[in-house]
Amino acid sequence: MSGHDAGPATPYLRVDVARVRRNITTAAERAAAAGVALRPHAKTHKSPDIARLQLEAGAIGLTVATIGEAEVFVDHGVEDVFIAYPLWLSDQAARRVRDLAERADLAIGIDSVASARRAGRLLTGTGTAVLVEVDSGQHRTGAAPAEAGQVAAAAAEAGLPVRGVFTFPGHGYSPDAKASAAADEAAALAVAVASFRDAGLEPDVVSGGSTPTLAHTHTDAITEVRPGVYLFGDAQQWELDVVSPESIALTCRATVVSHAGGHLVLDSGSKALGADRAPYATGWGRLLDHPEARVVQLSEHHAVVDLGGTPLPELGSQVDVVPNHVCAAVNLADTLWADDGSALVPWPVAARGRNS
Amino acid sequence: MSGHDAGPATPYLRVDVARVRRNITTAAERAAAAGVALRPHAKTHKSPDIARLQLEAGAIGLTVATIGEAEVFVDHGVEDVFIAYPLWLSDQAARRVRDLAERADLAIGIDSVASARRAGRLLTGTGTAVLVEVDSGQHRTGAAPAEAGQVAAAAAEAGLPVRGVFTFPGHGYSPDAKASAAADEAAALAVAVASFRDAGLEPDVVSGGSTPTLAHTHTDAITEVRPGVYLFGDAQQWELDVVSPESIALTCRATVVSHAGGHLVLDSGSKALGADRAPYATGWGRLLDHPEARVVQLSEHHAVVDLGGTPLPELGSQVDVVPNHVCAAVNLADTLWADDGSALVPWPVAARGRNS
Repeated sequence: MSGHDAGPATPYLRVDVARVRRNITTAAERAAAAGVALRPHAKTHKSPDIARLQLEAGAIGLTVATIGEAEVFVDHGVEDVFIAYPLWLSDQAARRVRDLAERADLAIGIDSVASARRAGRLLTGTGTAVLVEVDSGQHRTGAAPAEAGQVAAAAAEAGLPVRGVFTFPGHGYSPDAKASAAADEAAALAVAVASFRDAGLEPDVVSGGSTPTLAHTHTDAITEVRPGVYLFGDAQQWELDVVSPESIALTCRATVVSHAGGHLVLDSGSKALGADRAPYATGWGRLLDHPEARVVQLSEHHAVVDLGGTPLPELGSQVDVVPNHVCAAVNLADTLWADDGSALVPWPVAARGRNS
Repeated sequence: MSGHDAGPATPYLRVDVARVRRNITTAAERAAAAGVALRPHAKTHKSPDIARLQLEAGAIGLTVATIGEAEVFVDHGVEDVFIAYPLWLSDQAARRVRDLAERADLAIGIDSVASARRAGRLLTGTGTAVLVEVDSGQHRTGAAPAEAGQVAAAAAEAGLPVRGVFTFPGHGYSPDAKASAAADEAAALAVAVASFRDAGLEPDVVSGGSTPTLAHTHTDAITEVRPGVYLFGDAQQWELDVVSPESIALTCRATVVSHAGGHLVLDSGSKALGADRAPYATGWGRLLDHPEARVVQLSEHHAVVDLGGTPLPELGSQVDVVPNHVCAAVNLADTLWADDGSALVPWPVAARGRNS
């Protein structure tokens, strides 16, 4: 994976197509075997080319985080999209959601009686469905699980189709919390379902899942999973022991620009890799072919690497850096370069920067 | 600065034009009074509209980090550009540099005898000048100051115009290191100048400067400063006590999307703010109008804010978030929205993503 390559100018993001296909197929087969639907989160790749691979492998639709991401994928022919975010609808946002609902099977998130009533006022009669977000332990957004039925009832009363309930067990991004976060997820969703029933409602969809908790999901407690990162992997998942380096399908190809001070300095800075660094991370990124190496200093256009004493690759040579958080790295690039073993094909990051 | 604004969909970056103009003018006046040239680093704004303001205020040219940034600004009519980076030139990169040198007064960085010889082989006769980078204490790239003359001599011997020496005192990004880093910068540059003279060369340009060290610059030791962030400010500079909130000219306008768990949750996540968090930072970002507030949890599309006990702004209202590192935030956006007090004007981030 190194050498003096005649590809695009570095730093650029390179996708190993065989690995991506394998990761997508494996997850689809596991979901099917467990009897749960797979609705991948497209915020990770933002790519219509990859969405197509996921849907062909059996994904029932896509998850996205924003109206803008939904617009890009619907424009590219995706017919079933869930915006897994508690949107607070401005009048302008509501117009965009109504337009999307005319062109696709669309659902959005709500997480309070107030947001349910607002969505009801602006979206009833458009076909837009809602799912109630509950907090299963990440303490970000989401209603308390016991209050899910109350939120659902407010939406139903306002005339909205209430499809079900969802959560994101994001507190599973920790070396020892994957199984416990999956258990929290199942428990929170069970409370939410009971709360729906107390309100006289039955959720069709009970949705959870994240890449680190995926293998621990209580599949009897849910109907759907929404992982994002699983198709690429990244240094976070590597360090969480969720993926092995042999399955990592996206890297940042970088050039050795300096040996100043005896260091290895690459041109893959934070504007290519992203600056994410979780508390458990051992550096700002890793090298795919040097498991002992760590990015120990990161600025916008420089990555200083500690190679653990092994000889420095020569000036001008190229190495493959594994970003800490692949969603952040992808959102910095306009193009993913797909390597199918014979050529590099540009895959546009069509939903890059679509934050609203 | 808050309310229910009818501007672009949030999150978006908003520039206070009066403040930007004042910050640009103040820095230009101070540089002129000190008798040093100002060559602002355009990686911060990536905006031809802002470059124009800087050049009109007396900047002698621009600093950029990559060939791609240089191409954008030369395409927009900038005539004097310094790529302050130790480029390792691929054949393709050399072709692009030669093309730029035909259209502008161009200089690039080198930091080793090897890079000097390579640049000599590929660029001699094209008019491209070089400056030798030296390490003044950040320990990233840059030759040892005492070896600067040797690198310069290799470039001169290869036939390149050697313009001078430069450094970036990046270790001044620390609450107590601003003055000491500026002193390190002056000392390193003095050693480098002596080393040039030992090699029989005289540097025309002795270039330093960063925003946090700017006020401490030893102006007798340099001919030029290259600050980047000074025109906007950000939460890092606020916490380094380099700027006051009253001078911060760029914010991310965000909407309150949830009060889940009694928290303030905004739609300005890491894909809008960037994930940078320096060791001295007290959070993932701050609120311009609530100095006691901190972003205490940041994910891609959520910022959870601790308001220090003050009442939560209502759902759907808007607040102005100050990113930790403005260069990272700007590089995530396609447009800056310039607020001149009467209208919002789009300023394209024309060099966004130009990492190579």
